[in-house]
Amino acid sequence: MNRPFNFSAGPAVMPEEVLAQAAAEMLDWHGSGMSVMEMSHRGKEFGQIATEAEADLRELLEVPSHFKLLFMQGGGLAENAIVPLNLSRGETADFVVTGSWSQKSAQEAARYCTAHEAANTQSSGFTMLADPASWQLSKQPAYVHLCSNETINGVEYQALPNLKALGCDAPLVIDFSSHVASRPVDWSRVGLAFGGAQKNLGPAGLTLVVVRDDLLDRALPICPSAFTYKTVADNASMYNTPPTYSIYIAGLVFKWLKRQGGIAAMEARNITKAELLYGAIDSSALYLNRVEKHCRSRMNVPFYLRDEALNDAFLAGARERGLLQLKGHKSVGGMRASIYNALPIEGVQALVSYMRDFEAQHG
Amino acid sequence: MNRPFNFSAGPAVMPEEVLAQAAAEMLDWHGSGMSVMEMSHRGKEFGQIATEAEADLRELLEVPSHFKLLFMQGGGLAENAIVPLNLSRGETADFVVTGSWSQKSAQEAARYCTAHEAANTQSSGFTMLADPASWQLSKQPAYVHLCSNETINGVEYQALPNLKALGCDAPLVIDFSSHVASRPVDWSRVGLAFGGAQKNLGPAGLTLVVVRDDLLDRALPICPSAFTYKTVADNASMYNTPPTYSIYIAGLVFKWLKRQGGIAAMEARNITKAELLYGAIDSSALYLNRVEKHCRSRMNVPFYLRDEALNDAFLAGARERGLLQLKGHKSVGGMRASIYNALPIEGVQALVSYMRDFEAQHG
Repeated sequence: MNRPFNFSAGPAVMPEEVLAQAAAEMLDWHGSGMSVMEMSHRGKEFGQIATEAEADLRELLEVPSHFKLLFMQGGGLAENAIVPLNLSRGETADFVVTGSWSQKSAQEAARYCTAHEAANTQSSGFTMLADPASWQLSKQPAYVHLCSNETINGVEYQALPNLKALGCDAPLVIDFSSHVASRPVDWSRVGLAFGGAQKNLGPAGLTLVVVRDDLLDRALPICPSAFTYKTVADNASMYNTPPTYSIYIAGLVFKWLKRQGGIAAMEARNITKAELLYGAIDSSALYLNRVEKHCRSRMNVPFYLRDEALNDAFLAGARERGLLQLKGHKSVGGMRASIYNALPIEGVQALVSYMRDFEAQHG
Repeated sequence: MNRPFNFSAGPAVMPEEVLAQAAAEMLDWHGSGMSVMEMSHRGKEFGQIATEAEADLRELLEVPSHFKLLFMQGGGLAENAIVPLNLSRGETADFVVTGSWSQKSAQEAARYCTAHEAANTQSSGFTMLADPASWQLSKQPAYVHLCSNETINGVEYQALPNLKALGCDAPLVIDFSSHVASRPVDWSRVGLAFGGAQKNLGPAGLTLVVVRDDLLDRALPICPSAFTYKTVADNASMYNTPPTYSIYIAGLVFKWLKRQGGIAAMEARNITKAELLYGAIDSSALYLNRVEKHCRSRMNVPFYLRDEALNDAFLAGARERGLLQLKGHKSVGGMRASIYNALPIEGVQALVSYMRDFEAQHG
């Protein structure tokens, strides 16, 4: 079967093997006579699915035992409120604003606490990261928030900052929605990580939260029960009915990741894919990526045609070659190729080949 | 294909045709080359899916044009907080407590407003409804909340109360999670209705909210953006990434409901199914349902074996005959048969036949 290559920023490409298995099991999961969609979340069949999904993800991401792994709902935008409701104590939280997502996080948090901008790279057009040494941290922030990969702007931290080395004892909160499972996480530098599943983990509607045990007891009284981390943790992510089918699909993705060799193998492939695409952009006279090279995202590659009048022709030609969903985010325009774990190297090769042909034709 | 009959209270049985179509379309939706899971929620393919789902549901439930229909996340338990965050203004809201779910709603609302119990039937073991004429309503409640079908206790309103006739101008809020789409709704008596999808509409992880336009502007400042009805409505349920695959599956269920003849036809079938099962219980010496006859649920039928020592044998025998997930909720024990829209009459016939055989053997 020859499927097109899907460069959507999310919901995004899924491993074909996962989709095929989900289709085969749709009416009868493992002889249970039920679709996974039809199972009580309290039953032993779904219990097994959820337990395996959590164990596989914990193993893949090497999450230490003093962190809880929670399956929630609402995506990153909901977490922008849920994190300060759980962690801010109504005091001051610091935000490192390096793109659209961290900007939204700071704005939403201001409903629940004093949201202090420790840094803001907007004047660069969000094409760079701020050196941690230059951050203006508060004296005792409840936490420090950053987005470790900005999906829209294509800016990624290659290493997480060491807050302790900056003289700050606060927990670091990272929004890792769009690069989770594409590279290892240094948990010694993290207090809480959250991400919507719909980029590298599974279907939209599932949210992953990884939270250090000592941060579970800080929720404000106005935090809804269904979104209180301690309540969710105490009930093994089943305080309210979880998004069962999405957890099942994510579990299939986790098993696929393990078969691929785990996160280290994915990272190696992701580096290769990103180098190929950025190389093609940088060596061309038509295409342009504005992000500083040391913080370019391996997952989301925004690029522009120097002649914007060619945009529609570029997209139409791409579609003809089976290269889908390359249009850039409406807030920044241009193009964006999201090259997540499930996008094979052949997809990047096909894109690069098309870009060269298009440039030769229109250059 | 001979599938077992699934009596789960939710996540619950799905129409077999829907599952078969979802399996067939899993790798390529309508020639798009994408699974629905892989589609950007902003793209034209998913746009068509979401628009049709909303239009079909609006038609099925006969939702008037001055109500918004929202697809959200978090289920009924999250709505227990989201409703008072949006509607209470921090004032007093009235709760008619007739079972586990309305009780939870009142408890959660107390975080955001004064939650006044206008009635409480707990002393009956939640086996009855309170006559609206007996309700002790507040003077000017921000809203009046009830659960129109209590999933655990099996108590259902056969008609919604007319608050205006009780001298109360407040909007009525109904939690219709476990009987939505099983019978018509009298929208002239409703301000807001909400429900988790995982009983009669689709997969867990999708929440339906139907809200009257004049109630969209009352949210508290602490209401998270992703859960502010006006924000969700203004963005056609795409302020945050919606649970796209769950909306797609629900859309297939809506089309299935239309092929069955719509809600009126489903109601007629549901009456037949419920009469068959309650008739079998009432005419037996072994089985017992404690709910007052005029408010027995057509969807969730809790029943007890007078000899509780037989419970395990009953469940084991049921499983052997392909009658699944009949165990009652842990808080009330006994058995529960949830006989939602997608559970065919043949399933109820098989259950009744088994109950008679079991009684003959053990009676």
